[in-house]
Amino acid sequence: MANSIPDIVIGRLPIYLRELTRLAEEGKTTTSSQELGRRLGISSAQIRKDLSHFGEFGKQGTGYHINYLVDQLRQILHLTDEWPVAVVGAGLLGQAIARYQGFAHRGFRIARIFDNDPQKIGTKVNNLTIQDISELEETIQNADIKIAILAVPANHAQETADRLVKAGIKAILSYAPISLKIPEGVKISYSDPVIQLQQMAYYLIPPISQD
Amino acid sequence: MANSIPDIVIGRLPIYLRELTRLAEEGKTTTSSQELGRRLGISSAQIRKDLSHFGEFGKQGTGYHINYLVDQLRQILHLTDEWPVAVVGAGLLGQAIARYQGFAHRGFRIARIFDNDPQKIGTKVNNLTIQDISELEETIQNADIKIAILAVPANHAQETADRLVKAGIKAILSYAPISLKIPEGVKISYSDPVIQLQQMAYYLIPPISQD
Repeated sequence: MANSIPDIVIGRLPIYLRELTRLAEEGKTTTSSQELGRRLGISSAQIRKDLSHFGEFGKQGTGYHINYLVDQLRQILHLTDEWPVAVVGAGLLGQAIARYQGFAHRGFRIARIFDNDPQKIGTKVNNLTIQDISELEETIQNADIKIAILAVPANHAQETADRLVKAGIKAILSYAPISLKIPEGVKISYSDPVIQLQQMAYYLIPPISQD
Repeated sequence: MANSIPDIVIGRLPIYLRELTRLAEEGKTTTSSQELGRRLGISSAQIRKDLSHFGEFGKQGTGYHINYLVDQLRQILHLTDEWPVAVVGAGLLGQAIARYQGFAHRGFRIARIFDNDPQKIGTKVNNLTIQDISELEETIQNADIKIAILAVPANHAQETADRLVKAGIKAILSYAPISLKIPEGVKISYSDPVIQLQQMAYYLIPPISQD
């Protein structure tokens, strides 16, 4: 069954989960697809349809029990335990990621960080010691890490991704501004601020007229 | 005409532009939808269909002239001049963004950076002086800045977004892990690494079996 659910539906579940968690933090115990939709700018019908792929979570009149729905979404998304994550690249971005407080309680923990700069290797980011990237494969295999965040320069990204895949990594979040070749069975997600800015610039009136 | 083009098509154009730029850097002068598709993991038919919304860019047999297509895509996406961008929040992430080399030649330049921390205000990030966030509205209006990157903590994000919108910002890239309420006519894009990791975790075998 799981295989038949469109990626775009899966893509929205974490958004629902994040907003439900915020509602719970605000002290609420129940919500509705209408309230959730209003807060997210998504139609309530869409939310109900997305959730209906996985079962019946709400009741006409009373809506959703937030804690229950949060638990269910965490199970669906495989977030009930913490995934250890390896960060590759300990530049400003890699360090910002390693120090980011937002992973806690959301299913992930930064378990390792690697760099190739002798000046950085052995120093600490938070409570993590920056490891030599030559230890990448062995460390990832021994620690059974399946998820990596790639924060290396573009010209090292493909080669590093290849090493991660060989070491057993199954999901990569890449901050390098290039498209990577990744084999079937490994998930890849990209974060490139320029791409996101360019996608929005299309809708804006240019700074200087082109005419 | 422009209004009828689906957002998802617009969303792919920057990906094409980035890969075409890389091809040019590799010394190539022409390419094909097949080659582009292979490098991006997108079908060549999709690429041809996407581009056909904007005109005829390639020829049967010779394919695309890379420089010409790059120029056309930059015009379509309003990237022929550099958009000045304001970064709000000069923590590790805001500073990593401000120092990021990837904006140059891709249509954007970080023009201003703001924070509310007296320890940071007046210090420099690259060649930019961190400004007091109390100067936000006046600076943005005077410099006619339309695009902002939000790198403030979640609990300040909505209030800061409201201020940006009032100051005339038309597009926001937010790194705060919450959904923002933004009025019609303002574009919003989110970057939350945890959401991206959660979207991939669904497809992985959990670290510890749930059964």
